[in-house]
Amino acid sequence: MDIPTYEDMLAAHERIKPYIRRTEVRTSAYLNELTGADLFFKCENFQEPGAFKVRGACNAVFGLSEAEAKRGVATHSSGNHASCLSYAAMRRGIPCNVVMPRTAPQAKKDTVRRYGGVITECEPSTTSREATFAEVQDATGGDFVHPYNDPRVIAGQGTCSKEFMEQTGGLDMVVAPIGGGGMISGTCLTLATLAPETQVIAAEPEQADDAYRSFKAGYIIADDAPTTVADGLLVPLKERTWHFVSNHVSEIYTASEQEIVDAMKLIWKHLRIVMEPSSAVPMACVLKNPEAFKSKRVGLIVTGGNVDLDRLPWMTS
Amino acid sequence: MDIPTYEDMLAAHERIKPYIRRTEVRTSAYLNELTGADLFFKCENFQEPGAFKVRGACNAVFGLSEAEAKRGVATHSSGNHASCLSYAAMRRGIPCNVVMPRTAPQAKKDTVRRYGGVITECEPSTTSREATFAEVQDATGGDFVHPYNDPRVIAGQGTCSKEFMEQTGGLDMVVAPIGGGGMISGTCLTLATLAPETQVIAAEPEQADDAYRSFKAGYIIADDAPTTVADGLLVPLKERTWHFVSNHVSEIYTASEQEIVDAMKLIWKHLRIVMEPSSAVPMACVLKNPEAFKSKRVGLIVTGGNVDLDRLPWMTS
Repeated sequence: MDIPTYEDMLAAHERIKPYIRRTEVRTSAYLNELTGADLFFKCENFQEPGAFKVRGACNAVFGLSEAEAKRGVATHSSGNHASCLSYAAMRRGIPCNVVMPRTAPQAKKDTVRRYGGVITECEPSTTSREATFAEVQDATGGDFVHPYNDPRVIAGQGTCSKEFMEQTGGLDMVVAPIGGGGMISGTCLTLATLAPETQVIAAEPEQADDAYRSFKAGYIIADDAPTTVADGLLVPLKERTWHFVSNHVSEIYTASEQEIVDAMKLIWKHLRIVMEPSSAVPMACVLKNPEAFKSKRVGLIVTGGNVDLDRLPWMTS
Repeated sequence: MDIPTYEDMLAAHERIKPYIRRTEVRTSAYLNELTGADLFFKCENFQEPGAFKVRGACNAVFGLSEAEAKRGVATHSSGNHASCLSYAAMRRGIPCNVVMPRTAPQAKKDTVRRYGGVITECEPSTTSREATFAEVQDATGGDFVHPYNDPRVIAGQGTCSKEFMEQTGGLDMVVAPIGGGGMISGTCLTLATLAPETQVIAAEPEQADDAYRSFKAGYIIADDAPTTVADGLLVPLKERTWHFVSNHVSEIYTASEQEIVDAMKLIWKHLRIVMEPSSAVPMACVLKNPEAFKSKRVGLIVTGGNVDLDRLPWMTS
């Protein structure tokens, strides 16, 4: 199993710098007072395509040889990875094929197309997705970039924490949401070398707590079809992300749906940033476990800002 | 009539620097493509109390002598000036009295109180407000800080454009919303000396277009009771802000209610920042008058981010 190294992360950062933003770190005196902690928010929602996944996507796309690049890239995703990979491919001027369930929201399809991604629709089942993806890849020869279980992607996501440490001058802990584990793995990769004293903490929805249960059990547990407002965190761990989670994560906390929505609203109100529900899970966990974070310098990764403004979760909850 | 000078603005910047944020400037490749202009957004919504008005408020509060400061400050406002003045007074540790109509939204009252401001309620009429304010000022001796027709406030607001020019390396035009004219006046004050070639453009709701009509007529026209979703822009010009508007503003554009809401949503979606309707008027005017801005380096001041998340304008429109 090829696991990316710290040097891979450093090379990734040099490679992707022209195509990503060194996103701002925001703070709020009010939120610090509320939690008794020093909170630092790394605004990956401010990436041009709105999510940290542009880091891993750019690292994969710009690491291809000229010959490989001609055939383009391909993936299956209905979320931020699809739009970020399309964006990265557009920046390099190469094709990007995306297999998406036909039931995916129109807004997600529109974003992929805005960045020049070519969508092939499948039925909303694993069988259909895999069969359709195999056909697309056979036809195009595009390089498969998995949303998270890819060493190039993990190395790319790790560049976020490198910037975060440079921008803050050091943190006691970094909290990031966990779905498939790409961001958490990149964070572990970087901090294990750059700041081994800094704890890496994962935050997960109670209703999709497969990483939490895996962490406690000591082996990967995958849920069948979890549902949560934090729809970026539905996918299970895979072997490469499990490697980092099992070896380097200090703790996984979980939060309920209501706690996630409340934290989201609190951050919108006081940091005045638009972020998606998945990105609110770290703050929900900080609010729920105040003693664990009190008086600490806590970095929270705001992973993405792509949200349907016409269907905000507090409109119905 | 005491009109602030460029040197007053420079002194204000030194005075308030420890208490305000040098707010980020954000850009969006997508919005640039959409408008054909190079747009730069100065995020004053990221000030701790959520609005540029913290600049003028801090300049007034921290410019008081020790003897004056003991008596505190006082104002009448139901908007961002009330919370920003309370915030500034809290930072100096002095009292702040605010007269507010009893009908003001609870959220606005809560914010003032969170910053230690003392609210005295009046009836929602000019007569009641003036009588109540006179009583409060008599009782406390607090220094009256007008929301915009005060040279200290105008000099403070001018610090925003100084940062903006430093951060962008120069702009062809700066567009800001206009209500009472405090921000526009500060912008004129600063740019007239620092960048006389940079045009200052004001943006106003069609439904509260008293500044536009004043600008065309050549004298101050005040509306009786305008209504607009851009509720930070209801107040009329006064003599000091008229001085700057009549002498230095290049153009005033107006936008309809729907155009304002559409621009607000567009910025929330693509810049991923939370801003209030008033702050969307400049973008609405850019979208409405593309030829005026095409191929230009255009600075837009995002004046504030205090908005009721439960009552967003597109929930009802």
